[in-house]
Amino acid sequence: VSAPVDPAGTLAAARGGDRGALARLLTAVERGGPDARDIGRAAFQQSGGAYTVGITGAPGAGKSTLTSASVAAARTHGERVAVLAIDPSSPYTGGAILGDRVRMSEHALDEGVFIRSMASRGHLGGLALATPEAVRVLDAAGFGWVVIETVGVGQVEVEVAGAADTTVVVVNPGWGDAVQANKAGLMEIADVFVVNKADRPGAEETRRHLESMLDLTRRTASDSSWRPPVVLTVGTTGEGAGELWSAVARHRAQLEAAGTLTRRRGDRLRNELGLVIEQRLRARAEHLLDAAGRDDIERQVAAGDLDPWSAADQVLRHLDA
Amino acid sequence: VSAPVDPAGTLAAARGGDRGALARLLTAVERGGPDARDIGRAAFQQSGGAYTVGITGAPGAGKSTLTSASVAAARTHGERVAVLAIDPSSPYTGGAILGDRVRMSEHALDEGVFIRSMASRGHLGGLALATPEAVRVLDAAGFGWVVIETVGVGQVEVEVAGAADTTVVVVNPGWGDAVQANKAGLMEIADVFVVNKADRPGAEETRRHLESMLDLTRRTASDSSWRPPVVLTVGTTGEGAGELWSAVARHRAQLEAAGTLTRRRGDRLRNELGLVIEQRLRARAEHLLDAAGRDDIERQVAAGDLDPWSAADQVLRHLDA
Repeated sequence: VSAPVDPAGTLAAARGGDRGALARLLTAVERGGPDARDIGRAAFQQSGGAYTVGITGAPGAGKSTLTSASVAAARTHGERVAVLAIDPSSPYTGGAILGDRVRMSEHALDEGVFIRSMASRGHLGGLALATPEAVRVLDAAGFGWVVIETVGVGQVEVEVAGAADTTVVVVNPGWGDAVQANKAGLMEIADVFVVNKADRPGAEETRRHLESMLDLTRRTASDSSWRPPVVLTVGTTGEGAGELWSAVARHRAQLEAAGTLTRRRGDRLRNELGLVIEQRLRARAEHLLDAAGRDDIERQVAAGDLDPWSAADQVLRHLDA
Repeated sequence: VSAPVDPAGTLAAARGGDRGALARLLTAVERGGPDARDIGRAAFQQSGGAYTVGITGAPGAGKSTLTSASVAAARTHGERVAVLAIDPSSPYTGGAILGDRVRMSEHALDEGVFIRSMASRGHLGGLALATPEAVRVLDAAGFGWVVIETVGVGQVEVEVAGAADTTVVVVNPGWGDAVQANKAGLMEIADVFVVNKADRPGAEETRRHLESMLDLTRRTASDSSWRPPVVLTVGTTGEGAGELWSAVARHRAQLEAAGTLTRRRGDRLRNELGLVIEQRLRARAEHLLDAAGRDDIERQVAAGDLDPWSAADQVLRHLDA
């Protein structure tokens, strides 16, 4: 609906501090399609400097508040920080679960901070592809730190957050006792644990519970020298944000010293290639279905007159020719 | 690794009561590939009679116990019942979260009951495709009812359960207060709510909470005449299982009277066609990546020498030829 973006020129403007240009690039990336690809290519040449931190945890754990406090800590170190807040949409209504970014407003006037909410709507590759593309744009625009905040409810969101250089998993006092979705998945991606709302009862028990779970968890060989620290924070007051910042910095230093950072990033690029190929194929499938007569084929399948495999044969017939 | 399955013959044997034949068919479907396709085609001709019930809810909600109690209720009505217990695997370890099917053992000697655990490993189309394929086999094998039990933690599992004719969402007393993952998604797919472990404190409050959430939730137009009932059960004693059975039967009658059942099933078939096409293209992409020199291309991408889009171009170049 909007005019095509000139990738190189707009990227140069964004790099020069033009926040409108940066917003346009991210909108195009979020929408996906040829524009996103051209922007991705241009950004690819100029990226590689940013360090990404994923922050994930259950709804209500206080991720936004903690993100805001972390941004403040990063700013005291003079770092330019971008925040990408991923709003997963319900597959049923298309409505966003999150949306409350008000608490981030303390950084609204800071030129060194850029905050962006992102949904996956429209991007054929979904969040898994839209997120690294958006991070790359922020990287190329000169942000040294990119924080990716997601709600860790589903596998996709956990994967998105886990695709950062350092992944912070936020829990609350009492987490250990409650039956929680995807606990195993969160345990495995965490590089740093945060017990937020640590002024509430049970914070120390939760820390001990996490430590004993860490004792039991065998880390992957590549990370065997790193044991995720458990940091206690109170996001609303900023207490512990400095400690969290130090923990992330220590993890970064360890990754860099061990050469793990380069390998992790290479793995992520390889994974992204797979996703790009799938996205192209999905677009191709739509095209082929249209060309083969979508309405007629879908009607026959829905009526049970044609099985899905024979219908797929009809659609894909021209692919091998 | 095993010999190819003769679809028509094995299906006939399964229909005749050969449980080993049925197990072989389901193993082939779970593994995916050409065998699964041939079995699917054969089953497609003989299916359409089974009514599917999805049961989903958080880990620990008591779904297995409740499923077992529901099977017992169905058996008192003389129905043959198959249970498909979906074990989602962690993307990180490949280990199954569930596995405790011991409580279903009361039905082990009942010829009218067939129980099968299924993981998505190996099936290129994932759970979203493996599940309807397995249901179709059970349908063609003569089971009048198929219960699909999933852990409703992620979007995929919710979608799998929500792709049944009637979807039962299981919660426990206290659900209303706790911050729970994917609550909105569960609210939207539920045709029947169950408050299981209703002998615990807070069951009535949870029922009231659900009713008031239902007051607020706008149902989709197609289902506007159905308001999900809230049934209180104690899975371990079987209390309420008869009521649950009645609620499912009422929902079925309503779907059939309104013509909604046919349309829902048509929509599911259309969706399945899209998934089959994607699966085929994914296999094709793997083939093309191999042909184009996977190792070399992946190495260049991982090193940052080649961007993912240009790499995808190289891989997909021959698709249009």
